[in-house]
Amino acid sequence: MSRTARIGIAGFTGYSGAELVRILKGHPFVEPVLLEHRAVSDGELPLGEDAARIPFEPQALRDEGIRAVFLATSLDVSMNAAPWVLEAGVGCIDLSAAFRLRAVSDYRRWYGVEHACPELLADAAYGLPEFFREVVKISSLVANPGCYPTAVNLAVRPLIIEAVLDRAPGIVCDAKSGVSGAGRKPSLKTHYCEVTGNFSAYSVLDHRHVPEILYTTDLDEHELFFTAQLLPLHRGILETIYVRTAEQLEWADLRAAYEKYYRDEPFVRLYPEGRMPDLRGIQGTNSCDIGFRVDPETRRVVIVAAIDNLVKGAAGQAVQNMNLQLGFPETAGLLNGGLTGAVSSV
Amino acid sequence: MSRTARIGIAGFTGYSGAELVRILKGHPFVEPVLLEHRAVSDGELPLGEDAARIPFEPQALRDEGIRAVFLATSLDVSMNAAPWVLEAGVGCIDLSAAFRLRAVSDYRRWYGVEHACPELLADAAYGLPEFFREVVKISSLVANPGCYPTAVNLAVRPLIIEAVLDRAPGIVCDAKSGVSGAGRKPSLKTHYCEVTGNFSAYSVLDHRHVPEILYTTDLDEHELFFTAQLLPLHRGILETIYVRTAEQLEWADLRAAYEKYYRDEPFVRLYPEGRMPDLRGIQGTNSCDIGFRVDPETRRVVIVAAIDNLVKGAAGQAVQNMNLQLGFPETAGLLNGGLTGAVSSV
Amino acid sequence: MSRTARIGIAGFTGYSGAELVRILKGHPFVEPVLLEHRAVSDGELPLGEDAARIPFEPQALRDEGIRAVFLATSLDVSMNAAPWVLEAGVGCIDLSAAFRLRAVSDYRRWYGVEHACPELLADAAYGLPEFFREVVKISSLVANPGCYPTAVNLAVRPLIIEAVLDRAPGIVCDAKSGVSGAGRKPSLKTHYCEVTGNFSAYSVLDHRHVPEILYTTDLDEHELFFTAQLLPLHRGILETIYVRTAEQLEWADLRAAYEKYYRDEPFVRLYPEGRMPDLRGIQGTNSCDIGFRVDPETRRVVIVAAIDNLVKGAAGQAVQNMNLQLGFPETAGLLNGGLTGAVSSV
Amino acid sequence: MSRTARIGIAGFTGYSGAELVRILKGHPFVEPVLLEHRAVSDGELPLGEDAARIPFEPQALRDEGIRAVFLATSLDVSMNAAPWVLEAGVGCIDLSAAFRLRAVSDYRRWYGVEHACPELLADAAYGLPEFFREVVKISSLVANPGCYPTAVNLAVRPLIIEAVLDRAPGIVCDAKSGVSGAGRKPSLKTHYCEVTGNFSAYSVLDHRHVPEILYTTDLDEHELFFTAQLLPLHRGILETIYVRTAEQLEWADLRAAYEKYYRDEPFVRLYPEGRMPDLRGIQGTNSCDIGFRVDPETRRVVIVAAIDNLVKGAAGQAVQNMNLQLGFPETAGLLNGGLTGAVSSV
Repeated sequence: MSRTARIGIAGFTGYSGAELVRILKGHPFVEPVLLEHRAVSDGELPLGEDAARIPFEPQALRDEGIRAVFLATSLDVSMNAAPWVLEAGVGCIDLSAAFRLRAVSDYRRWYGVEHACPELLADAAYGLPEFFREVVKISSLVANPGCYPTAVNLAVRPLIIEAVLDRAPGIVCDAKSGVSGAGRKPSLKTHYCEVTGNFSAYSVLDHRHVPEILYTTDLDEHELFFTAQLLPLHRGILETIYVRTAEQLEWADLRAAYEKYYRDEPFVRLYPEGRMPDLRGIQGTNSCDIGFRVDPETRRVVIVAAIDNLVKGAAGQAVQNMNLQLGFPETAGLLNGGLTGAVSSV
Repeated sequence: MSRTARIGIAGFTGYSGAELVRILKGHPFVEPVLLEHRAVSDGELPLGEDAARIPFEPQALRDEGIRAVFLATSLDVSMNAAPWVLEAGVGCIDLSAAFRLRAVSDYRRWYGVEHACPELLADAAYGLPEFFREVVKISSLVANPGCYPTAVNLAVRPLIIEAVLDRAPGIVCDAKSGVSGAGRKPSLKTHYCEVTGNFSAYSVLDHRHVPEILYTTDLDEHELFFTAQLLPLHRGILETIYVRTAEQLEWADLRAAYEKYYRDEPFVRLYPEGRMPDLRGIQGTNSCDIGFRVDPETRRVVIVAAIDNLVKGAAGQAVQNMNLQLGFPETAGLLNGGLTGAVSSV
Repeated sequence: MSRTARIGIAGFTGYSGAELVRILKGHPFVEPVLLEHRAVSDGELPLGEDAARIPFEPQALRDEGIRAVFLATSLDVSMNAAPWVLEAGVGCIDLSAAFRLRAVSDYRRWYGVEHACPELLADAAYGLPEFFREVVKISSLVANPGCYPTAVNLAVRPLIIEAVLDRAPGIVCDAKSGVSGAGRKPSLKTHYCEVTGNFSAYSVLDHRHVPEILYTTDLDEHELFFTAQLLPLHRGILETIYVRTAEQLEWADLRAAYEKYYRDEPFVRLYPEGRMPDLRGIQGTNSCDIGFRVDPETRRVVIVAAIDNLVKGAAGQAVQNMNLQLGFPETAGLLNGGLTGAVSSV
Repeated sequence: MSRTARIGIAGFTGYSGAELVRILKGHPFVEPVLLEHRAVSDGELPLGEDAARIPFEPQALRDEGIRAVFLATSLDVSMNAAPWVLEAGVGCIDLSAAFRLRAVSDYRRWYGVEHACPELLADAAYGLPEFFREVVKISSLVANPGCYPTAVNLAVRPLIIEAVLDRAPGIVCDAKSGVSGAGRKPSLKTHYCEVTGNFSAYSVLDHRHVPEILYTTDLDEHELFFTAQLLPLHRGILETIYVRTAEQLEWADLRAAYEKYYRDEPFVRLYPEGRMPDLRGIQGTNSCDIGFRVDPETRRVVIVAAIDNLVKGAAGQAVQNMNLQLGFPETAGLLNGGLTGAVSSV
């Protein structure tokens, strides 16, 4: 009898889907199975990346003994597929935004859609394990967080819970992402010639990830400045976050607040004083790297948080959630050290 | 009799110096002359970029009829060379920080040096023509502004003068620069393999350009968050600036404040509502492109300002100052449209 | 009376079309006019790049006094538009392959199409001015050469005419191009994430530019190895060409053969011994830079030729042809020195 | 008793050295130990990449029970260190060129040095396991092959041994490498601004890797054209190789020749007909990917071979050699699938 769990991946040719295949290939307890779907353009995998393929439909999931399904699909596909995946008795981890928000009105405002199965919104666990681990363990439907929210939520939630911050001036999150965050579908926006050597802001003050950030940080919209920007590189998100402390605090005080929450977290790395994360350090890893600088006298704090948008910002965190859901060790398949290539001087 | 003014360039093999050569080659009233200096590593120019070379010393400047000298040299070289250039009766435009600040104490704090000729600090014009044009015209010594300060100063000074802003929460300037801003001297920081695919913050809360920004914007240090970051690209600075208005204002109100100062400025381009500048639009040009988004209800404003760090942030602005100093049309040699290559969809 | 010639550009939002607009904006004798065509996706130009727009149809060309038309369109559009442009009495410079080949059978084999107006093939001048200048001057239809053929033809044609080469082993042309050569239409092939950090060969041994190279070099197909490859950069073609001389020759002998043809050519730069062209040197310019190394004893020669695929490989050479056609100085609008930014050590 | 072998790395802060650390951290039978040496600039490792550090000297190697030493050092350091490493009874895998060539005259001609320990040249195994596996197993000194030679040797040696090729016209190897191949020491050549958007050839017809290629392929110098070129990317080598077959052969005939040698090789991947390797497919892996196109009628063959210069071209192949030397499974620590990120359509 095989002890390997068969795990389905819908949308396996997108960047997040391909990253799921990459990670699961190295996972000790899992065999990835590609779920073919007519609504998804199923291209060819890299040489040697062969895997079993079955139709993406209830009967096939049952017949093939699929234990969990990753939906690396669009919001539309996810909203419609999640219900019957769950009905088939299969756990579901959705990488789209389909189950991240709680109110149908938010889907109308931010995504311009009427939600196809609002009854599931209350049941979905928000898959940020560092804060909602226990809920994820008992939920059959996990909404995998957005890439931008993952970094900023991990960077500021401890400070907000601990009431370290002065909320009056608000929080500024200046976010920069590599191009893979925009998906694999060709468009002028992601054309090489438009991106290389360029840098640009988009969705200023009305990015779809804002409501997700507000939920988790408990901020009001007027307290948050969030700007998304496109970096001329493949993968990685770096967010520079500007806050003020409520009173004069030293670096060590903020460090203590972070350690309270992250001391034993395998995927959050706190940088020592005087060092800041960069993208090289996290590319290919499931880590969220956090560093910060404090000017006690003026109460100014600058926080830098970095993740790989395809790993901790998508496929890696999804596997972390699957591990929790299925009772595997939380870090299984996720301790790859990345591919830095450069010895950065952190 | 030739009507062409001979203009000297010291430090012509650095990136700013080479850009000066490029611009002056296309200037209708000027002939560039390369000033050779033992303290500067004088490499070879690109094929076909020949120009006269003379020693960088007083007698040669006089003998060769040099009308003005650009110092594209380090702060140390500039502090020591500027006095004798001026004594030789030759106008001086310095691209280093040697004459940008007013107090010797600032040089001690931010640059760790004792100023070599403090007596010149009061005489130097701060060469941001959009605000100090008349002073530049009558000054023999011009301190060409830093690249970061040029963009943020142009972006916020009108709003500060017009008292549009709420100063209480302070101003956040999240700045990103291409690698040429770090100079041509090889270092691990500018090694291709360390930069490509990477993005990082540096000098967080204590960048040397801070005092220059404070001078021009009239902000106090506690009112400014400034972060410099390194983009994996050759040239261009984009700054994302976060402010709140003192009262509820519409986009058109801020536009009016900008137009009051920039309506006739040849090198400031205000973007229409709904569009934001990117780096492609300004690479190779002397423009500062400014766009912004306003959320009247919450008084949040996000401003995006973009310049080419080697042109409006260095050599182009220096030529603009030279034009003012020597009585040429201010735009002479500076109307090149850049080399966008991509048709961005602004 | 205005002395400015109005010149139409069809396909002005593609990369070659946008480059035509850029060049013509700086041309002293010309005013660009944008020709709007339903078959072409007419996007927005960069800020400030406004120009007159008229419909792309015979009556409008006549009414607006258009003197020449650039077709920066696909082969299909060009084949069908060129006849009526000529009938309207307007000169036509076509940047597609529609009129480069002489035989309808070649269009069948290499492009898989039946030519729409084979009667024009004999009349079209092949617009490589360095060799066919006099024909261009008297032709109303000019077929602007392909980007790859321009570089290799300029690099080897003098050596072939002068019978310097040993043809037995054949000629190897290993060509590399920036992504703008693939056009502006989004596709997975030009998606940023697929290109950045990558390098790949395509159309090995059956690239469509092969017949054009064979025509001009007078080689037989079995004598030519041609490989096209995609570089992770925006603009520029570099070709590394491997030949053997028929007898033992020195570097100076080959230089003499080149000088015989290029001594007075404004857009061919021969590199001195020991130096090789790179892409930085030609980006933004209309130059073809040629360097070579000779090993007399073994008769091995390596030639490196570099052009900007959007300038000498497309829009720049097209303007050079227009200058010849309309009797302007051949270099008008084309002496811009590029935007090197880097001081390469050639 | 620990079963983990302690393995020393000298030069651990260079790119090859850092890659050795990365690979050995994931190796199941090995613990990396950093060897500190005053002649090598020992920087800081990435966050979390801590490892034991001992002095690089004979006594320490013995005291600490080091089983093998990687010399990721310069030719000079390697020539002088290898003898005493061997005398200390420790296996030595040298990543420099110090022991790759057989004749002291070759070191004089190609490297301009007098070899410091010529007596070891005859004893060193050339560590290309696909052809010299059995020698490596019994050699205490292994000369790890150069990056360029590894790819071309694997691509053509089967065809040469099998006498498939027509040697008369010679073999052209047009090689392109990412910047990490130039090492981590800062220089103008590797400055970001000089490399990005650029492409250039160097050491044309006299690259130091030529003698190594000649040894392994058994070609004479006049039969080989080899050109090295610098790609604007971090890691990867792609070589485009042009040959003619001695008689008319089909694709399947060449495939058979390759399969004879590579059928069971874990690190050579032969591409199916119609597909060519690119760099994305091999980055981070120890594979050499080989594809080719044949035109039987004209006997032209184009071969494309790709490796990661830091893995199969340096650290990975070195670990492969260590595995052979120490009796570990040859693939131990080397089956990581890379970090493609993009789903290339091979």
